Amino acid sequence: MIIKIGIVGYGNLGKGVEIACQNHSDIELIGIFTRRNKDSIKTINNTCVYSVDDLYKYQNKIDVLILCGGSKDDLPLQTPEYAKMFNVIDSFDTHAKILNHFNNVDKSARESKHVALISCGWDPGLFSINRLMMEAILPKGNTYTFWGKGVSQGHSDAIRRIDGVKKAIQYTIPKEEAVKRVRNGENPLFTEKEKHLRECFVVLEENADPLLIERKIKEMPYYFLEYDTIVHFIKEEEFDKNHFKMPHGGFVIRSATTGMDNNKEIMEYSLKLDSNPEFTSNVLITYTKAVYKMFQAKDYGAKTVFDIPPKLLTNKTNEELLKELL
Amino acid sequence: MIIKIGIVGYGNLGKGVEIACQNHSDIELIGIFTRRNKDSIKTINNTCVYSVDDLYKYQNKIDVLILCGGSKDDLPLQTPEYAKMFNVIDSFDTHAKILNHFNNVDKSARESKHVALISCGWDPGLFSINRLMMEAILPKGNTYTFWGKGVSQGHSDAIRRIDGVKKAIQYTIPKEEAVKRVRNGENPLFTEKEKHLRECFVVLEENADPLLIERKIKEMPYYFLEYDTIVHFIKEEEFDKNHFKMPHGGFVIRSATTGMDNNKEIMEYSLKLDSNPEFTSNVLITYTKAVYKMFQAKDYGAKTVFDIPPKLLTNKTNEELLKELL
Repeated sequence: MIIKIGIVGYGNLGKGVEIACQNHSDIELIGIFTRRNKDSIKTINNTCVYSVDDLYKYQNKIDVLILCGGSKDDLPLQTPEYAKMFNVIDSFDTHAKILNHFNNVDKSARESKHVALISCGWDPGLFSINRLMMEAILPKGNTYTFWGKGVSQGHSDAIRRIDGVKKAIQYTIPKEEAVKRVRNGENPLFTEKEKHLRECFVVLEENADPLLIERKIKEMPYYFLEYDTIVHFIKEEEFDKNHFKMPHGGFVIRSATTGMDNNKEIMEYSLKLDSNPEFTSNVLITYTKAVYKMFQAKDYGAKTVFDIPPKLLTNKTNEELLKELL
Repeated sequence: MIIKIGIVGYGNLGKGVEIACQNHSDIELIGIFTRRNKDSIKTINNTCVYSVDDLYKYQNKIDVLILCGGSKDDLPLQTPEYAKMFNVIDSFDTHAKILNHFNNVDKSARESKHVALISCGWDPGLFSINRLMMEAILPKGNTYTFWGKGVSQGHSDAIRRIDGVKKAIQYTIPKEEAVKRVRNGENPLFTEKEKHLRECFVVLEENADPLLIERKIKEMPYYFLEYDTIVHFIKEEEFDKNHFKMPHGGFVIRSATTGMDNNKEIMEYSLKLDSNPEFTSNVLITYTKAVYKMFQAKDYGAKTVFDIPPKLLTNKTNEELLKELL
């Protein structure tokens, strides 16, 4: 079975999906759809670029549309809108608004008889599956999620908005001592500050005052004020050489007890990623296979990763799965 | 929703399930069914004990039967047999015979309109889910499974069968160097010997010859000959004091690359268990919830963990799941 996909949005994630298609032999990429002038975009693999205004013409040519826009402004409108015409998948990650997004998308997907998978990636996504399964299996315990070491786009953007900052990147780093205590089964209670460190690399505009900017960063509420924050000022050439990658990762750990003797049981799921957008792209592509199978089974509506049995993510037969992977 | 369960077999696993029921508020344990003289069994939580011959009387009183017998002699007969009367779940783990077992159980569960989940535990089980998902998400890479540090019952039994051995236990230990190379993304090719070490603690009968017994252990084909094996002879009191627990664990690691620059992406799932049977019991109990929901949805037949969406493992509503765990 070959699944024909389209990509909406050509930022880091859209590019990641374009590249990742090459490693999934059952995926055929039909094109990239953009709100920008389509002639201004040069794709990596020579993929065709179309205007989003022409999407309606592709309703019979695309099985699943992968929405690669941002959670803040794009997806809240795009996902319910395009679910009217297509099976869709997005990586919506504004946690507080997920339920509202789900309900909007569900309404439109049910009416049009499509499948729409929301909030698919690694967190929300693979980490969520692990939080659910670990808690279900070991009810007596605590779940810990750590993020990093990795680039937080939101925090990097926040620094870049400060006057006098030319370039900036922020790495979220789990504190080793905290991770170690959790892995030891100590079941500690943490504030956010005790779990993560924020390390910033900043290139200043000429004549900018480093002391003032460092204070502005460290005192920014929600982003930095509540954390231990380290600020490094570096030269632009060093920035360009060492900070262009987008690594990320993290762990979900369940620390629990069982039985009459309170035996300790530790479950852990971890990711160590050189490229966050490339990895997330592969997750999205893998889940398009499930989306399309649910569509074929007429299981319409909005879905999350919680609704999807593992076997829908692969094209292996039940016999192959039992022999090779069980 | 309360699910009423019965346990068949009262060894380590059956006892683990009996104890674990206490932590799952939606599970009601009806009784333990045994082939032994039921009056000879004293249960841990004062659970009622019945003869397996009376099982047929409980068809309307039990929602799911958890089969806690052995994979070698018990489950190949019991699972297809009891699937005629009940929804069942087992932890069948003889890898080479899983497909045959699945087909036998499937036939009988379909005919009687029941759900029968086979090979549920952590390996096969949770590890299998991770092998499938990791390979599906990252097609360009290798998957590694390591077991331990933990007790292998099969290897311990093999030592105990040697003349002159009074007590014995064998721990399977992943070699640190091998795990490290995998976590570094080196994608090494291993023989089994390079991945795991076998450490044995043995109490001798009086007058037994330690040199002879050590040689017999180390030269045992399939079990020890192909591995680095360490044998310790210890006093019985030390054995009884330090080697009565059944710890286990292990890791599934996917080491892969993505993109044009071959970025490294490492996914890992790991377990560190003080009590293997207690943890496995909790997995079994959690999956009974899915079995019963599939039965209610008339999704009859044999199943594996690959067929089960995460949401069936919990009683939380979709709204709770989106708010708390996604």
